[in-house]
Formats: sequence, C-alpha cells, structure tokens
Amino acid sequence: MNNNMYSKQSLEEHKKMAGKIRITSRADLTKPEQLSTYYTPGVGAVSSYLAEHPNEVKEYTIAGSTVAVISDGSAVLGLGNVGPEAALPVMEGKAMLFSQLGGLNAFPIVLRTQDTQEIIDTIINIAPVFAAINLEDIAAPACFAIEKTLQDKLKIPVIHDDQHATAIAVLAGIINALKVVNKQAKDTKIVILGAGAAGNAVAKLLVAFGVGEVIVVDSKGTIFKGRDDLDEYKTELANITNTRMVDGSAEDAVENADVIIGLTTGGIITSQYIKKMSNQPIVFALANPIPEIMPADAIAAGAAVIATGRSDFDNQINNVLVFPGLFKGLIESGQNTVSEEIKITAATALAECVKTPSPKNIIPSVFDKQVVPAITAAITSKHKHTT
Amino acid sequence: MNNNMYSKQSLEEHKKMAGKIRITSRADLTKPEQLSTYYTPGVGAVSSYLAEHPNEVKEYTIAGSTVAVISDGSAVLGLGNVGPEAALPVMEGKAMLFSQLGGLNAFPIVLRTQDTQEIIDTIINIAPVFAAINLEDIAAPACFAIEKTLQDKLKIPVIHDDQHATAIAVLAGIINALKVVNKQAKDTKIVILGAGAAGNAVAKLLVAFGVGEVIVVDSKGTIFKGRDDLDEYKTELANITNTRMVDGSAEDAVENADVIIGLTTGGIITSQYIKKMSNQPIVFALANPIPEIMPADAIAAGAAVIATGRSDFDNQINNVLVFPGLFKGLIESGQNTVSEEIKITAATALAECVKTPSPKNIIPSVFDKQVVPAITAAITSKHKHTT
Repeated sequence: MNNNMYSKQSLEEHKKMAGKIRITSRADLTKPEQLSTYYTPGVGAVSSYLAEHPNEVKEYTIAGSTVAVISDGSAVLGLGNVGPEAALPVMEGKAMLFSQLGGLNAFPIVLRTQDTQEIIDTIINIAPVFAAINLEDIAAPACFAIEKTLQDKLKIPVIHDDQHATAIAVLAGIINALKVVNKQAKDTKIVILGAGAAGNAVAKLLVAFGVGEVIVVDSKGTIFKGRDDLDEYKTELANITNTRMVDGSAEDAVENADVIIGLTTGGIITSQYIKKMSNQPIVFALANPIPEIMPADAIAAGAAVIATGRSDFDNQINNVLVFPGLFKGLIESGQNTVSEEIKITAATALAECVKTPSPKNIIPSVFDKQVVPAITAAITSKHKHTT
Repeated sequence: MNNNMYSKQSLEEHKKMAGKIRITSRADLTKPEQLSTYYTPGVGAVSSYLAEHPNEVKEYTIAGSTVAVISDGSAVLGLGNVGPEAALPVMEGKAMLFSQLGGLNAFPIVLRTQDTQEIIDTIINIAPVFAAINLEDIAAPACFAIEKTLQDKLKIPVIHDDQHATAIAVLAGIINALKVVNKQAKDTKIVILGAGAAGNAVAKLLVAFGVGEVIVVDSKGTIFKGRDDLDEYKTELANITNTRMVDGSAEDAVENADVIIGLTTGGIITSQYIKKMSNQPIVFALANPIPEIMPADAIAAGAAVIATGRSDFDNQINNVLVFPGLFKGLIESGQNTVSEEIKITAATALAECVKTPSPKNIIPSVFDKQVVPAITAAITSKHKHTT
C-alpha cells in the first residue's frame, strides 16, 4: 500500500474512531462500598496521608506509571510547524503505542504556546501527575533548552524522544551494520547529514560509543571548531566531532566514510556520494516519508547495507523500537536522567535482539515481542538507581 | 462501616492498585498495516488535514470527548490546602467516575502552582487536548476568577464543579423536598450557611430558580448590601439576596426559614436553629464527613426532611449525581457555558428521577442508571447550541 492509500484510510479511520485512546476505571464501581473506598469518603484518608508524605504519591496514584507525551506542534513528523491540533493525532498515536507495546499509561498533551519559557513553566506546573515526560516533535534549538531545564528542575525522566530514542535506534542499527561489514566502531568514519534534534543526539551518542571519526554536516557544510556561524549547540558538536577539522561540503565530508547517516531532507544523497565512500558503504537514509536516497539507488551505487525510516523497506530504523522499553526501564530503575551510558545499554540490547545480522536484517521488527522486555531488563539490571 | 474502617481499606486498596485509571489503545496494533494507519506514515495525513482545519480536531482526536479534571490542591475535600499530590487521588477518582458513569474520557491534572494567573496560563496552554475543563477543589475566591477568565478565553465548557454541580444537586434536592412539605419555591425562605464556592453558586441558582427569599450567612453573620467587609463576590451575593437586608447572626437569619442549607463546617446547626424555623423545616447539612447537624438530632428537633452529603444516611446530596450528565450534555449540545437556565434544566431532570418524593427519598441513588442519561438528554434537547 502506498502513502496515498494510507492517507485516505488513515483519515477515515481517525474520523470513525474520534480518539485513539480510552481512559477507563481500573476499579469496579457498582456498589456503595466501592464508591466509599475509591472515592469519598475513603479517598480522604489517601489525601490526608499524601499531604504528609507527598513523596509517596507514585505508590498510590497514576503518577508512578504515567508518561506525558508533550508537543508544541513546532516540528511534527516531516510537516514542520503545524501547531497543536495537527500534532495531537501523532501524540495520541504515541500514547497508544506506550500502552500497547509497553503496558504503560501515557497521555498526550499539545500546547497552545511555542514560547520556550512558557513551555517549561507549563510542564513544571502539570508534572506532579507524571512518572516521566516524553517531549516530542519540538523544533531545535528550543528543544535542547526545554529538555535541559526540565531535567534540572524535575525529579523524573524528561526525554526529547526525537533526540534520544532516535539516537538509540540508529546506534543499534550501526552496531549490527558494522558486524555485517566486519568493521570496528573505533576504526570507522561516520558522516551525519543534518544537525537538528536527531543529528545532534546521534552524533553525541556515536562519539560516546567510541566511533573513530564523526563529522556532522548542516546546510552550510561541515561543522568544525571555529566556524563562525555556530550556535551553542553546534559549537558543542564542533568540540567533540570532526577532530581533523574538515572544512567543506557534504560531498567533501563523505570521502572515505564508512557510514552516512541522513537525518535531513529527502533526496539529498546522490550515487556520487556513495561511490566516494570507503569499501562496503553503509547508508542510513532516515528522512520520512522520502529518504535521502532510495534503497534501490543506494544498492546500485554500491551500498552494502541500506536502512530507512520506512516500514515498506528492509531495515526500518524507527524510534517505536526504543521508547516503550526506554521509558519503562528508566521508570522501573528509578533513573531520572538518560545518560549516554544508558543509551548505549539500550542500543546494545536492541541490537542483540537480532541474533545473526545480515544486510537486510540489522534491526528487529517493531512487532518483535522481545524488544521492549530486552531494553527494559538491560536498563534495570545495569542502571538501577540506588539512594 | 465507619469512616475509619474505610480509611484503612482505602489506603490499602489505593496502594495495591497504584493508579485508579488505565489508558489503553482503542485500535488493534498487531499488524504493520495498523501501525501505518494509526501511526506513521498514515497519521501524517491527519496532521496535514488538521494543520489546514484545526477547528475539526474534535472529530479526529480525543479532544472531542476528553474532560480534564484539574485542581491546585488548595481546597481538597474537607482537608483544605493540602497540595497537588494529596489532590491527585481525588481527581483520579473523579476521572474514574466520568468513565464509569458517563462513558467519557477524563484525565486528572494536579498543578504545582496556586498562583491564579499561572493556573489560568497553564490551563490555556494545555486546553487544545480537551473537550471540557472540570475545575475541582480550588479555594474561593481564586476559583471564581480562574473560572470566569477561562470561560472567556476558551471555547469549551469550563466548570468549577464544587460550585455548579453542587448547586444543581442541591436544587434538585430542594425541588423534591418542597414537594414533600407541599410548599412553593416562590413562597419559601432559604438560609445558606457558608459563602465559599458552593454557597455562592447555590445562592445564585436558588435566586434564578425563583426562591422567594435567600439569605447567605458567612462567619461574620448575614451578607447584606452595604456590609463594609464584603469582597467582590460577596458584594455580588448581597446585590441579589437578602432583599430585606437582615443584619444579624446565623441564628437570627434562620427565624421562620423554610430551609437551612449548611455548606460550611460540621456541627454548627443546633436544635435551637431548627426550632426557630417555619413549619415542616427542611435541613440540608452538607459538610463532609461531619454534617452541620446529625440527622437524628435534626429530626428530634422537628425537621421534616434532612439531607446530608454522606452515603450512610438517607438523601445523599452528592455532585457525583450531576457532573457526568452535565459535562456529557454540554459537550453533546455544543454549549460552552453553563448558564443558570442549563443548571435549572439539569436540576429539574435530576429531581424528576424520583417519581414519588418522600421524606427519606428526595434524591436518586448515585447508582441509579437513569440519572446520567436523564440529565444529558434534558440538556441536549433544551439547550442545543446552534451556530
């Protein structure tokens, strides 16, 4: 089925359903005693107890298990700044996946504001209900400041999924793709096209993982220390990537690269790029719905492994593989921050779900039932928070 | 079972359950086509459509059917200002009842702030997700300004339930109690003890219903035009109640009253008050968990009808009787404001659920399955919004 066919069906199904999630009572409420236990007067005892022991709220309420999926609608899918109403079906979809794949409660919140400080204040004000905050589809660079400030102020995990879950899924794919071509990360040169939320987080995680050389390219060319038009986030990238300080175009950067990761715009990787790469080139063309290069073209140009973000090609790199297990693992282990170490743990666990990586099988299916438990267990066993 | 027994059981059950509501997917998500329809890439078509037609968001998402139950924890049950964590089990309980009794989605939000302007800003920022806002357990007078401002700024119903649902439940009880003693509202004198959120709304609704004389008493005595310590909300009450401008104590006010409605503190109505009332006195002692006078004492003093807020006595006046049908009716009829006329419609429908009112049966049980449909149908048939 092509995207146009999904479009029509998706519109019809969304209208028929008018809301993809349902909120129901976990308690039976058909007898007066039940009403007295779960509502008044009994609930008064729970309120009195929590007034004295607010830190125990997670043990008595949904605040121990509920994820907020929050967007300001500024960078929705590939559509850009389409606003809160247009963002809502995506956030609802994500809430649905948290429940279906991870068994977590999740509730979508779309915001009327795109002001960084107002977003921060609003989320702080509603945070007492939640066990974790999944920031979603918020444009760079605002997303960095929002995430950082909330991580500092709230005692729960706050994760901009477009950065971290994407980075984990990409790293998992890279781990297995390198196995396929029999290369070691430390000897590998990786070029990332795109320096937005995802490109930024992928670059940092690859460096932390020990990739030999990482170069990030934005619309102006390679990012390097001293380039005079860098904002604070690109400056941070310049400090940890491109150690040889290559100053040039995307096409210059990909010379002798082992891997290209496209996190930018459909169609920008040409056959010429791939021909300039090292032997057995690996290409991740992750723009959606139109990849930076189509798989058939990449293979014709010599790619040994090609991955995209699409479900209708092999090797779909999708953060659906990551976020249910990542959030579940963080909540269950009592971790409030997602460190690079935790991301590497998650990526490694995800990669290991594929027993024998091959060119067309570097990443598990999003329907593989071992994925969420594998990521959750890896995080809880290696990163249990101790007080 | 007494309150202490509920307390222990309620704490245990809340801890065992760790969250009284569950959020689940309404769509099956076990096949790739389903993921493509409800999530990416299909959901992109819905986002694109809503980017162009944001006003149709309610037809494609939960925004058409989901109620936010929002509190700042400043006036929770009879406990007072106990903060957001302590408020959460109550708000969750309410969300549970919206689902169980009304078939609506409802999600609890408790706020880290008690600043009026911050509360308003936060709710405006998260409003795009909701079909209606149920403000709950917010202290007077802040609750009046918050409700009024949000009603002006948002195009959805915003209702402080402690005011309006309580007022509707009380009026329904009064309608039937007056039938029992064979009196007409226009010839009746009603004294309200307590001028908080509930007392304020009850007084206004009784005046709108046509009660002959309404007097509100606060801790300083009767409220009358010209009393020099009235805030703007009590001044508003002074302008529409106590037309004979009685200046005195509660005990002065109840002389020859047909009805006393207690919306204040347990134990403050004495037998002496009831003896001073008109023939066949009606007493609503609604403080929880300890009523202004215990039913046995009220009857011993001559009360013809006694109602409380408690489930273990006859005639329980509980806003659980009102809010599911009220919100459902407003959402289905497209009404954004709850006028006094709509409240009278709801109260009349609720009162009519009792076919033959008697001293011990002036209000239906909260488990009476005809209540929600009766209130919903009355509002949608009489108050359908036409554009």
